[in-house]
Amino acid sequence: MKLSVALTPPYPVVVEAGLLARAGDYIRAPKVALISDEGVAPLYAETVRRSLEAAGSRVCTYTVPKGEDSKSLTTLEMLLRKLAQDGFNRRDAVVALGGGIVSDLAGFVAASYMRGIDFYTLSTTLLGMVDAAVGGKTGVNLPEGKNLAGAFWQPKGVLMDVSVLATLPEREFRGGAVELFKHGLLADPDLLDDVARPEFRRDGPASFLEGTVARSVQVKADIVAEDEREGGRRAYLNLGHTLAHALEAHSEHALSHGDAVAYGLLFAARLAAARGYADETKRVERFARWVAPTPLPVGPLDPLLPFIARDKKHLGRQRWVLLEQIGRPRIADDVTEAELRGAWAYLQEAVRDGVDKDTGRETL
Amino acid sequence: MKLSVALTPPYPVVVEAGLLARAGDYIRAPKVALISDEGVAPLYAETVRRSLEAAGSRVCTYTVPKGEDSKSLTTLEMLLRKLAQDGFNRRDAVVALGGGIVSDLAGFVAASYMRGIDFYTLSTTLLGMVDAAVGGKTGVNLPEGKNLAGAFWQPKGVLMDVSVLATLPEREFRGGAVELFKHGLLADPDLLDDVARPEFRRDGPASFLEGTVARSVQVKADIVAEDEREGGRRAYLNLGHTLAHALEAHSEHALSHGDAVAYGLLFAARLAAARGYADETKRVERFARWVAPTPLPVGPLDPLLPFIARDKKHLGRQRWVLLEQIGRPRIADDVTEAELRGAWAYLQEAVRDGVDKDTGRETL
Repeated sequence: MKLSVALTPPYPVVVEAGLLARAGDYIRAPKVALISDEGVAPLYAETVRRSLEAAGSRVCTYTVPKGEDSKSLTTLEMLLRKLAQDGFNRRDAVVALGGGIVSDLAGFVAASYMRGIDFYTLSTTLLGMVDAAVGGKTGVNLPEGKNLAGAFWQPKGVLMDVSVLATLPEREFRGGAVELFKHGLLADPDLLDDVARPEFRRDGPASFLEGTVARSVQVKADIVAEDEREGGRRAYLNLGHTLAHALEAHSEHALSHGDAVAYGLLFAARLAAARGYADETKRVERFARWVAPTPLPVGPLDPLLPFIARDKKHLGRQRWVLLEQIGRPRIADDVTEAELRGAWAYLQEAVRDGVDKDTGRETL
Repeated sequence: MKLSVALTPPYPVVVEAGLLARAGDYIRAPKVALISDEGVAPLYAETVRRSLEAAGSRVCTYTVPKGEDSKSLTTLEMLLRKLAQDGFNRRDAVVALGGGIVSDLAGFVAASYMRGIDFYTLSTTLLGMVDAAVGGKTGVNLPEGKNLAGAFWQPKGVLMDVSVLATLPEREFRGGAVELFKHGLLADPDLLDDVARPEFRRDGPASFLEGTVARSVQVKADIVAEDEREGGRRAYLNLGHTLAHALEAHSEHALSHGDAVAYGLLFAARLAAARGYADETKRVERFARWVAPTPLPVGPLDPLLPFIARDKKHLGRQRWVLLEQIGRPRIADDVTEAELRGAWAYLQEAVRDGVDKDTGRETL
């Protein structure tokens, strides 16, 4: 299954089971810097390297530690220096093999090395596929905040091999499904049905997973193509993310991104319903229960408010993405603190309902 | 005097004596990060700050040590963190106040912070004006080589206050004149006459300096507008730079960039003449004597050859910019080692002729 991201120049997104072993059919460069992490490299780097070499590339593999700490200027510098030491030049390419962390980091390497060389993404997580791989956002974290240093750098091609999803931890699969579900809310109701089907599992039928992933990518690709640098419609992709970023920051990332966005989507659904827009709270709550996020800290909203106000996309005033109905998002910059408190009370109530009778674990 | 760089979007270059005190007429942002170095900040930062504040901006001034060592990822990180700590967001701007080093560094800060914010350059050196300020090249050095990490990031506006040239050291003024002279060779013979006139001095008449600087900038702006990312015509700007980069690298930067390019221009003029193209060696030699570069190391070409082959713009094969005649450059990728040795012998001879009888100092 092949789609195209309609930027200048356009670039292809290929979604197919078994694609990693055919990477060389799509990636052409005299030399390739294959950047991966210690979790993914042992599983797939050799397969990719063999395919690229068969297609005539020389391949240097660079492996970084797994996890968010690798998204740093220190790791960026280490990688840029490796490329220089290994003689990379402007005709060569960087290939990211991994999830969102690896592609954010490797993309910034590609954007910065000699002021920009070709970049390809081989996504190995569901979140990487439906979120990070398309859109051209690259970057690393500073101690002061996530993604504060980076570049918009569009890949030359994106390859998604859905067969690798089978090796993902279940929690990571569900975390990625949160963004896919968000795309459904924003623009494609069929996706909302897909995630409820029994075939939607990490080792589901290849053709089903290809179709679902491709449709989710299409939603993001369409939005990005209209708004490459995030001045307008692209803001819709922040649905659920305003509260999520505050929850992540306040919990010092004890809450995963997927979990935080699951709560954020439910919070936004409640804000919308309370305004008399579409009431999708039941549907979102059902989905969020399936995600089974880490328990939400129980307590007042107040400590979160400064984090909500600081979100870098707000530019000084709060902008919430709310659904008038499925497929029709809008930006609201007039959400009051009373509305926020109302939605928070609802969310706290939902959490209280969700204490697991067997384990005593408090879940949504 | 106002020109425009015809990129998308186009941006203005204003060349005027006294412009620093009117910076606020051209720069609009809620908050400005004014980045300068310890040489320039004490002279001009206060003037610029006052003008920006009068126009309604809040100004944070960040000063880095003078010199090439500040073009590092370490300084980049320090500045990015300062911006984050001081609450900069996507609507704010970075303003570079200084020469090429400051604008390369500050431009990369602007390109990277939150994936890119507005950038303005206030050039305070002749080299900064005629070379670094226009073209959108930003970046820092790695231990492995100069400018290996960076971005193409076009400024939103460029301001050149020619009255500040009076405070430049004479050697820096002449070093900047080398790029201006190069622009004359490439596209505007009147510039070659200008540099020979008595008015061409760092405290020359404002209207003369404005005209000369503006014409030089126009040559670069025209080339850059046709070839933003250096795939074609922009390569002409490397006239004189192939040998220059090798001289700089081999001497471990004992030779300044201006001096190295002065030698490089003469070397390229000789290569061209020996091929039967225009013979501009006399004119270039006369100019180079005025530049009075640091003596060229006397000796064989051989230790320079690996550095010539490694130049990042060559992409594997040597590409020399040679003038068929003034205003008509071409790229030659078939220059033989014998031709290089011939031009080197000529250059060595020119140096030998130039021993200063009074000081014994070997000059061109």
